[in-house]
Amino acid sequence: MGGRLDERGRIQLLEGIFGAHGDAALPAGVELAIGDDAAVLDATRAGRRLVWTIDEQVEHTHFRRDLVGWRDVGWRSFMAAASDIAAMGAEPWCALSALVLSCDVDDEAFEQIARGQADAASAVGTRIVGGNLARGTVVSVATSLLGSCDRPVARAGARPGDTLWLAGAVGLAAAGLRGLDGGRGDDVRLRRAVEAWRRPRARIAEGRAMGPVASAAIDVSDGLARDVGHIAQASGVQIVLDARAIGEDAALGEAAAAVGVDPIDLALRGGEDYALVVTGARPIDGFRRIGEVRSGAGLVLRADGVERSIEPAGFDHFA
Amino acid sequence: MGGRLDERGRIQLLEGIFGAHGDAALPAGVELAIGDDAAVLDATRAGRRLVWTIDEQVEHTHFRRDLVGWRDVGWRSFMAAASDIAAMGAEPWCALSALVLSCDVDDEAFEQIARGQADAASAVGTRIVGGNLARGTVVSVATSLLGSCDRPVARAGARPGDTLWLAGAVGLAAAGLRGLDGGRGDDVRLRRAVEAWRRPRARIAEGRAMGPVASAAIDVSDGLARDVGHIAQASGVQIVLDARAIGEDAALGEAAAAVGVDPIDLALRGGEDYALVVTGARPIDGFRRIGEVRSGAGLVLRADGVERSIEPAGFDHFA
Repeated sequence: MGGRLDERGRIQLLEGIFGAHGDAALPAGVELAIGDDAAVLDATRAGRRLVWTIDEQVEHTHFRRDLVGWRDVGWRSFMAAASDIAAMGAEPWCALSALVLSCDVDDEAFEQIARGQADAASAVGTRIVGGNLARGTVVSVATSLLGSCDRPVARAGARPGDTLWLAGAVGLAAAGLRGLDGGRGDDVRLRRAVEAWRRPRARIAEGRAMGPVASAAIDVSDGLARDVGHIAQASGVQIVLDARAIGEDAALGEAAAAVGVDPIDLALRGGEDYALVVTGARPIDGFRRIGEVRSGAGLVLRADGVERSIEPAGFDHFA
Repeated sequence: MGGRLDERGRIQLLEGIFGAHGDAALPAGVELAIGDDAAVLDATRAGRRLVWTIDEQVEHTHFRRDLVGWRDVGWRSFMAAASDIAAMGAEPWCALSALVLSCDVDDEAFEQIARGQADAASAVGTRIVGGNLARGTVVSVATSLLGSCDRPVARAGARPGDTLWLAGAVGLAAAGLRGLDGGRGDDVRLRRAVEAWRRPRARIAEGRAMGPVASAAIDVSDGLARDVGHIAQASGVQIVLDARAIGEDAALGEAAAAVGVDPIDLALRGGEDYALVVTGARPIDGFRRIGEVRSGAGLVLRADGVERSIEPAGFDHFA
């Protein structure tokens, strides 16, 4: 077990990693960063609309220390929040982070969490500009992100006749978690799946590409069925998922075979991929077609020419 | 043990309590509230500067179920974040909340937490417009708040010759917690102290009053010594605390006697009062004088005409 800085020492470490007040690398418009009661932003430097989210990853629920390193914990928690910004068609502006650390998190682990957060922030072109530190009995990482755009894309807005488009893989992360949990993280067929679970990427570029043209959008955090179900319900439409198109992902097929689960089932029920699924009339750069929107309600899965209703179930924290 | 709604049911309950999309009572400029990937805000409706904070209250660290009701847990966690906005001289605009709930939190407890948050938001003139729900092994409430102002007041900026001003009580909340912890929550001498700990109030009006004129400001969450120490350090000045002025609070004296602790010690070391302490040249409505700023470094306590250096120690999460 390593050292334990006091609160001031830990905040100074964070200033070194995230950038302190006056750091030239801070996002435009950030006037006051880590080290005061609140961050100060120049509102006139934002776009017409601010998009604002909060997400939290909790030990035992979202990660286990035996399956993931601390730097991955920081990365994954940041990307989960950034994915919400992508799903609105926005660009990240800046972020706050609230860390809860248990007594057994030493300075090395603490630094790795922060470096993972900073890596992820940098990968999507932003920075952490403030936050909070507290002690607790389990580790959690809450991330609040502000993004900016001219035209936010909500879940409501899909219209009959629209096509359903997907950017990124679905089901891979769930296969990776199953493989890790079964002690098979070294299986070469699961390499991409394990990477998808440990190091997901918020689809910021794809989000910006769909922003001006999509009719509805969501990120796939809880499985395709559940999240597409949110669009169907919010938009008052029926959405048909095309099993063949969903199953065309070779990496998903290989990973599904390795863990012995049907790939379509993984895609429909598996979470934490942070793919983007959107509806719209025309093709969008970086997206592929996986279904269509029509009048009605609920979800339909089309497989081998046969259509059947499916429940929009997926991961539910409280079911 | 009561019922357990699923995630959708819990989100619908929150929409009922906090207000959903299209609710006329939402703050001006909130275009999309609970129920999408992120809240959407009209940036042109904010003031010149945005002030942004996150705070988190964690079971066993910030509250214990045997000392506080769920509605108080919601209230206290919201006020802790709102106090950061007050300390910048800003006015709350809108808030997000990330709740972590353990399995034994039933729907009644869940609703009480949310109602406490909504009560507190309403008391400071704002609303919760989105958030996150997750399961965990202990309960925590993270609150991110955006505020707006023209002139944010930071911790740096105090100048020799300034006076030190206080709005609100200090030490009372710590006395209340001691009383509760000792099973003396019914002691009439502790009534105000227990109320101060259970139902703190962010000093929004006082924050707005000091905003245009204060040279530095902070909220007292970790004890007067530690938080005034932050101003001294950030501003590069020495601050003298006047024990007589600090001890003039009759409620503090009564509560201190009831718990058998020196009132000045309670004020210096006790946290969670959320008073505001600011520096500035002239008196400010709602503030009373408790010391002065001069050249030098660190903190000095003046008592009975004698000055002595004191450590800026108070509550430290990791010491």
